Amino acid sequence: MIRVESSQGSYPVLFTGPQPLEGLGDDVLLVTDAHLAELYALPDVPTLVLPPGEQTKSLEYLGRILSWLATQRASRKSRLIAFGGGVIGDLAGFAAAVYMRGIRYVQVPTSLLAQVDSSVGGKVAVDLPEGKNLAGAFHPPSEVRIAVSYLDTLPDRQIRNGMAEVWKYVFILDPDLGDLLVEPERDWESIVRRCITLKAGVVAEDEFETKGLRATLNYGHTVGHALEALMGYEGLLHGEAISVGMVAEALLGERLGVTRAGTTEYVRESLEREGLPITHPALSRADDLLDLMRRDKKAEGGRLAFSLLTAPGRCTLVEGVEENEVRGALREV
Amino acid sequence: MIRVESSQGSYPVLFTGPQPLEGLGDDVLLVTDAHLAELYALPDVPTLVLPPGEQTKSLEYLGRILSWLATQRASRKSRLIAFGGGVIGDLAGFAAAVYMRGIRYVQVPTSLLAQVDSSVGGKVAVDLPEGKNLAGAFHPPSEVRIAVSYLDTLPDRQIRNGMAEVWKYVFILDPDLGDLLVEPERDWESIVRRCITLKAGVVAEDEFETKGLRATLNYGHTVGHALEALMGYEGLLHGEAISVGMVAEALLGERLGVTRAGTTEYVRESLEREGLPITHPALSRADDLLDLMRRDKKAEGGRLAFSLLTAPGRCTLVEGVEENEVRGALREV
Repeated sequence: MIRVESSQGSYPVLFTGPQPLEGLGDDVLLVTDAHLAELYALPDVPTLVLPPGEQTKSLEYLGRILSWLATQRASRKSRLIAFGGGVIGDLAGFAAAVYMRGIRYVQVPTSLLAQVDSSVGGKVAVDLPEGKNLAGAFHPPSEVRIAVSYLDTLPDRQIRNGMAEVWKYVFILDPDLGDLLVEPERDWESIVRRCITLKAGVVAEDEFETKGLRATLNYGHTVGHALEALMGYEGLLHGEAISVGMVAEALLGERLGVTRAGTTEYVRESLEREGLPITHPALSRADDLLDLMRRDKKAEGGRLAFSLLTAPGRCTLVEGVEENEVRGALREV
Repeated sequence: MIRVESSQGSYPVLFTGPQPLEGLGDDVLLVTDAHLAELYALPDVPTLVLPPGEQTKSLEYLGRILSWLATQRASRKSRLIAFGGGVIGDLAGFAAAVYMRGIRYVQVPTSLLAQVDSSVGGKVAVDLPEGKNLAGAFHPPSEVRIAVSYLDTLPDRQIRNGMAEVWKYVFILDPDLGDLLVEPERDWESIVRRCITLKAGVVAEDEFETKGLRATLNYGHTVGHALEALMGYEGLLHGEAISVGMVAEALLGERLGVTRAGTTEYVRESLEREGLPITHPALSRADDLLDLMRRDKKAEGGRLAFSLLTAPGRCTLVEGVEENEVRGALREV
């Protein structure tokens, strides 16, 4: 078990066996998506099944969950179980954050991406038509339950999707974790545990992203989010977009003299070996991408900010980056 | 100036002259309603004008504010000015609570109801089709600016609407405040200041409504909210509904032996003298009202909870109240 510190008290991350939905207790309600409802046996509790996919992470579906909670007579003492990947976790977690001004919720992440990243740290959100995760809250879960056995049933592309975030931890915080990743048979529990421990450490120090530390977890995301938005969140998975973004931002860092020369090669090779994309045709649309980057939550008054590597395993938040430098980096990817 | 303590630091309640919108500083955006935009000169800042009325306090209009903030390129450093009554304050405050997971906002309440109650304490929310204030957050403003001069332009019915909450403070906390209210010429600044001081004291002790103290501010509201919902939020103002609710809940308290005998008469006479309604034909629809009360945020698993007076100036939260007692009280109103 790992304990994550938060302003609302600490919460446990439990590594369960293959039945993480057992023993949830009374007065719980469950939100999941149609894909998972088909794959897995669900407990006998009130359940709302939503369409799979990023399109569901909207104010419209937030409203559906909230109205469903009200018609189910959920009270302030009820707990909501978010059973699914990042979309379900972010959406149901946001619903729990605002229903009656906040009820408890349990994250049961089923994807590698959600297990190593979004299920821990209390960031919940929905997308707006204007951008990703633009409406949300900091609302820590009361508990996170992780069954790495779910990873056995994930398609390879979904594993790679999560591995992009795992490699991000290698690049920004923990080069030694890279050794675990290149072993022929991956020990998923060790990998997931290590990622969560790293994230918990950052979140405990800068829960509300006010000190420039938590924002460094956004390495690769300024470019990655813009790329996702430009593609209309279709065709390109989140991990794939940030994989391209990490290459672009390594190049940007080298251009600016922030990142030690040669680091980009290490980033690029690691991601390529993983089977992740390291470039994308839409990077040529620099004007559109810059327009989207100016809407990034780290930006202020149109001034761009990036989490940049200084060397493998270290990173820093750099504000006020010149657009021309970004253009230059995008051309080099 | 009054300072209100909150978990996110304290914030000032300033009593300004008749120009509370002067000197707001840079990087501010303003939300108001069409009625106020017509009545008052607005500062030269980006402004969103919404339709007046409770119907605007919805997830739909929350989405409109959020999208507008994004298109205006509001950043995490921007501040939102909520210029209006309770609807604008609750709605814009909620938008500030969730935009980029929380930005600062300034409450500039223009109605008596908002000045003495909703602008202070950080409770923000929208209504769901299933009930009032069911989606929201605790998000303290960075500042509250009060111009009592606005009260001179309010219609009498709107003054009475706010006076219902002022009398509530008399009944639950401060009988002496009643003396200020029956003077021929009301000293609004003293009245508003006293109400906010009372509320700030409660909020400082039980900000998140977990200790049963802040919930006592809900005196009259369990019945009042149900009555408002039954009327479809039309025809009956919030203060009018809770005026009827305070009479009903005083009777309920006397029936249960919680409220000192004779207290109802004091409540009824005070409200009647103010010109507020003390009964309503829809109280005969006890089944419908009870059904709505079971959805109240204080209720748990269908068990009703009420803030009940013990004597004039004192109250307590009573949970698990029998429905038959509520029916009896509703018949007596």
